[in-house]
Amino acid sequence: MKQYKIPNATIKRLPLYHRYFQFLKDSDKKKISSTELAEAVQVDSATIRRDFSYFGSLGKRGYGYEVEPMLEFFKKLLNQDKTSQVALVGVGNLGNALLNYNFSQTNNIKIAVAFDKNPQIIGQKINDVPILDTEKLAETIQNQEIDVAILTVPANNAQKVADELVQAGIKGILNFSPLRISTPPTVRVHNVDLANELQTLIYFLDNYR
Amino acid sequence: MKQYKIPNATIKRLPLYHRYFQFLKDSDKKKISSTELAEAVQVDSATIRRDFSYFGSLGKRGYGYEVEPMLEFFKKLLNQDKTSQVALVGVGNLGNALLNYNFSQTNNIKIAVAFDKNPQIIGQKINDVPILDTEKLAETIQNQEIDVAILTVPANNAQKVADELVQAGIKGILNFSPLRISTPPTVRVHNVDLANELQTLIYFLDNYR
Repeated sequence: MKQYKIPNATIKRLPLYHRYFQFLKDSDKKKISSTELAEAVQVDSATIRRDFSYFGSLGKRGYGYEVEPMLEFFKKLLNQDKTSQVALVGVGNLGNALLNYNFSQTNNIKIAVAFDKNPQIIGQKINDVPILDTEKLAETIQNQEIDVAILTVPANNAQKVADELVQAGIKGILNFSPLRISTPPTVRVHNVDLANELQTLIYFLDNYR
Repeated sequence: MKQYKIPNATIKRLPLYHRYFQFLKDSDKKKISSTELAEAVQVDSATIRRDFSYFGSLGKRGYGYEVEPMLEFFKKLLNQDKTSQVALVGVGNLGNALLNYNFSQTNNIKIAVAFDKNPQIIGQKINDVPILDTEKLAETIQNQEIDVAILTVPANNAQKVADELVQAGIKGILNFSPLRISTPPTVRVHNVDLANELQTLIYFLDNYR
């Protein structure tokens, strides 16, 4: 597939577009106007047009978008043809919720294995995902050639586990712990900070209305 | 407290700074250099300086930041003097994880009440938060003067519940459902899209290394 130069902000919206076209296809819709699309994904239509312009001529002006080819395009773009296997470390409440979260419903992502150090849950399965001893982390990640890990361990343990993940060859970490982690520049970290999201929303409400 | 004009990107980093100064105080640190701060929060120091510049002269050049006054400043700025009460709707796996997530550890946020329509859990408490029938949503939110809701219902129900929340007077929604919701312009929605986060991380890894 062609490689495009695309701004990060656009990249972050691609899964959203992909998912919405999937939703339209599942609802047997054949076409959608740019106004409807903007309304549905809550992105203004100028931004959508700019986003799509990075990929050449997607959609016709004044006509809207045909669902099937758009879906096919985003599927290819996001490598939805292959399934990405990820690991999860830390099967507490949040880890447990993510194991039960149906990533594969909207994206070709599968949590292949989970790790925890609690002997009471090691050996069990959640939503068909086996939970292994954290001691097996490096070995398993290397054997299964897993590139991406979800980090849901408590904050005070996050950096230590991140170091182990990097050591094991992980290239991307989705970090849910509230403190930031350091990794070498070759490892990409995306932070999902739930308390931060809530705090920011509250700050906006208190100050901008 | 003074009202500042601050870019959204800066606002989103404020809780991160706040939390890190809290962490430093808890670790009995008195001072931190701007290099250390940049490393710890994973934001480059030019951005930190620009962020702080919106609030006048925070910290001295070449000296770094004193923990105590910085913490006090961010506490006031983020209204950490008062506790924000929020509601949660949808006590599935993710809702359950959020109820057990200790928001109050790092932020003065408290989930005051949760709603679900499953009779098997209505009347129970999770982490001391009572679970009420979704039918009581409007009444409870009005009585308890709650402004902010966390939405963790299944995607196919999200818009309906969002409409009910708006009707009940909610001003801010933290939306975890994978499809976007529409609300009137007076209601602020922040989306946390877990599959999207993971997908974006994988896309970056596949295309930019």
